[in-house]
Amino acid sequence: MNPVELIRKKRDGKSLTDDEIKFLVSNYTKRKIPDYQFSAFLMAGFLNGLNKQETAALTRSMLYSGKVIDLSSIPGVKVDKHSTGGVGDKTSLILAPIVAAAGVKVPMISGRALGHTGGTLDKLEAIPGYRTDLSLIEYKSVLQKCGAVLIGQTKEIAPADKMIYALRDVTATVESIPLITASIMSKKLAEGINGLVLDVKTGSGAFMRKQKDARALADSLINTAKSFNKKVIGFITDMNQPLGNYIGNWLEVYESIKVLQGEKVDDLLEVTLNLSSAMIYLGGKAKSIKEGIKISQEMIDNGKAFEKFKEFVELQGGDISLIKNPDKYPKSEFHNKVLAEKNGYVESIDVYEIGMASIELGGGRLKKDDVIDPKAGIIFYPKIGSRLKKGDLIAEIFTDRKNKVEEVRKKLLDAIKISNHKVNKVKLIKQILK
Amino acid sequence: MNPVELIRKKRDGKSLTDDEIKFLVSNYTKRKIPDYQFSAFLMAGFLNGLNKQETAALTRSMLYSGKVIDLSSIPGVKVDKHSTGGVGDKTSLILAPIVAAAGVKVPMISGRALGHTGGTLDKLEAIPGYRTDLSLIEYKSVLQKCGAVLIGQTKEIAPADKMIYALRDVTATVESIPLITASIMSKKLAEGINGLVLDVKTGSGAFMRKQKDARALADSLINTAKSFNKKVIGFITDMNQPLGNYIGNWLEVYESIKVLQGEKVDDLLEVTLNLSSAMIYLGGKAKSIKEGIKISQEMIDNGKAFEKFKEFVELQGGDISLIKNPDKYPKSEFHNKVLAEKNGYVESIDVYEIGMASIELGGGRLKKDDVIDPKAGIIFYPKIGSRLKKGDLIAEIFTDRKNKVEEVRKKLLDAIKISNHKVNKVKLIKQILK
Repeated sequence: MNPVELIRKKRDGKSLTDDEIKFLVSNYTKRKIPDYQFSAFLMAGFLNGLNKQETAALTRSMLYSGKVIDLSSIPGVKVDKHSTGGVGDKTSLILAPIVAAAGVKVPMISGRALGHTGGTLDKLEAIPGYRTDLSLIEYKSVLQKCGAVLIGQTKEIAPADKMIYALRDVTATVESIPLITASIMSKKLAEGINGLVLDVKTGSGAFMRKQKDARALADSLINTAKSFNKKVIGFITDMNQPLGNYIGNWLEVYESIKVLQGEKVDDLLEVTLNLSSAMIYLGGKAKSIKEGIKISQEMIDNGKAFEKFKEFVELQGGDISLIKNPDKYPKSEFHNKVLAEKNGYVESIDVYEIGMASIELGGGRLKKDDVIDPKAGIIFYPKIGSRLKKGDLIAEIFTDRKNKVEEVRKKLLDAIKISNHKVNKVKLIKQILK
Repeated sequence: MNPVELIRKKRDGKSLTDDEIKFLVSNYTKRKIPDYQFSAFLMAGFLNGLNKQETAALTRSMLYSGKVIDLSSIPGVKVDKHSTGGVGDKTSLILAPIVAAAGVKVPMISGRALGHTGGTLDKLEAIPGYRTDLSLIEYKSVLQKCGAVLIGQTKEIAPADKMIYALRDVTATVESIPLITASIMSKKLAEGINGLVLDVKTGSGAFMRKQKDARALADSLINTAKSFNKKVIGFITDMNQPLGNYIGNWLEVYESIKVLQGEKVDDLLEVTLNLSSAMIYLGGKAKSIKEGIKISQEMIDNGKAFEKFKEFVELQGGDISLIKNPDKYPKSEFHNKVLAEKNGYVESIDVYEIGMASIELGGGRLKKDDVIDPKAGIIFYPKIGSRLKKGDLIAEIFTDRKNKVEEVRKKLLDAIKISNHKVNKVKLIKQILK
């Protein structure tokens, strides 16, 4: 096999065989195929597409570039959830302990913040002492002890994905459904799971702004999961407003604690409980998603989910005293309120801008090596359909960066489009795909 | 400007500005943009195309990556010819002295053999002593003294083209009309010419097998030449049979000498005189192409063209005694005849296979560092429409490689499709474009 011939084949719109894709990926990983050939292949794949079989083959080659964790020694069904990312999306922090409390194992390998969205890993690291870099032995041990473990990608897992993602990032080949699919699935399949729940977000705060594109990505992820014989349920959920009210790393841990303690944050609960119930259902502990929702709510109400949360945080080295007394967390130097400047109904929210505003305050990275301020962020109250009166509190800003306060205040006001007419609430769960 | 943004723009089918293309090419040439980004750009350009303005901008950036020769100190109009390459295409060797003899300056920078086709440079180097690596000072001096000079690409000329071509070669981005256009034109425009005649070949021995593709390339080359205010005439000519009868480096010099001495090789003469006459016309020494043909024929008949040939060969260090007595050239170890095996009319010829057969005999390179045997090659007699009888001489094989003789004999016979019915001759000049 010759890399030029394979690039030409994809360039000319033909399909590559499993062996041809394996040849490209394994030789690229071994640095026998240079970056410039692989980037030409990526661009040809980006523009001409990869079919179902090619996407599965790419996933498989990337998956087996590293270690596939074997969790068969730990009893029970293992189910994870993957979200394509949004603003205020802290569902992993809440559903992992719910699902584990319900008796389904949750081995979760998460990512960092990407673009305007937050990352579970960065949120967990807001808890002093929390270690996201467990070894695979520690990972198994925490899972075995408490039924949930949340870490970051290790070097042993899908190293081809790391190399390919870094190349895609600098060659404008990121936004491709087959390439995104292989990147996500190669990491998730390495976790040793039996089932996977997918949360593909759509709207102004999602990577897939259009529902059509979100659906295409969900279908591609589901097809690939199925081709590896994994149980899978996909959700298309709304990201036209932040999920919950808290945005920023510690702020999202804080809101998660409150929800696990029984506080009712309607939109956040609706999405989280749908996802957790699907996980419980795939894990065989509920007969339907509907029953799964009931069980999930019970796990909050009886305190078992919050206990489980404290348990895995402690096992992973986190300072549990702050989980018990979250108001003792260090405070930002500046805490400013944003008030509505006119009357009306919230017609739309530019969630991308809200995500970017949180980054400006220190809550995220603009460059790879920026250091995150875990305290920084926004509490954002309005939802689509909310009625606002001039002077209403619409947001709170937390930052150590004094010079950003006024800029962010304006940005938040600009992100809200106000109408004189009544506006309907959004439907959060847009589609459930099996 | 950011290379990733520019790759993305081309990837999304948008047009790049002149400055954006200049940024990419000049930074790539300075090695500030890495190969892997430039190859992603090339693949995006290959698949989404480059428009007229982008092609001109790419040409300009590649042209000004090096020296643009200033021939203004040499009086007269300077006109060159470029052919996209074929088998047996030795027109440059014949028309350069014809046109120079007619009073139009011919500054010609040629290339080596590519794929199955021959290269003017390799043919000239079959003449012992002939130097194709003149310095730019020597280049000007030969042109001034005799009105024609034929050399190879120097390091000073379009270095970006060398880098980009090497990258295209290993990333399956060669066969793109805008990229081919920029590669050809950046080198031709560096010669210091006022006018250019283009010979775009089509047929089984051409890179553009289909006339539609040849026409698209011709249009692109003509548009680009015009955007640099060069006079230009384009020909689409047939390459469904070798041009003339001699194929191989010295063999083609030999046939050129014979034609310059007045031998009538109909198809070769027809194409050559059309091209030379267009050059004479662009050089202002003929009022029409028709008159240019008359002048060209005169330059052969009165011996001035052959004198000019000997003049520039001598000025470039070539052994003139072999030009005067070409039969004294060293002979191949093996000289075999190929005879027709059945009766009929030649319906078609696979000229690509004949080009490859000549390479097998030693007349070309299969790998970059192969050494050419200048004596090796084929004399191939049949033309489309020729009537053959079993036992007729159809080809002669010249080689030092005994083991290739039988293989090539079969290949040549297989390359000829014989019909029982009469077949028309091909039209050689398919289109003239201005």
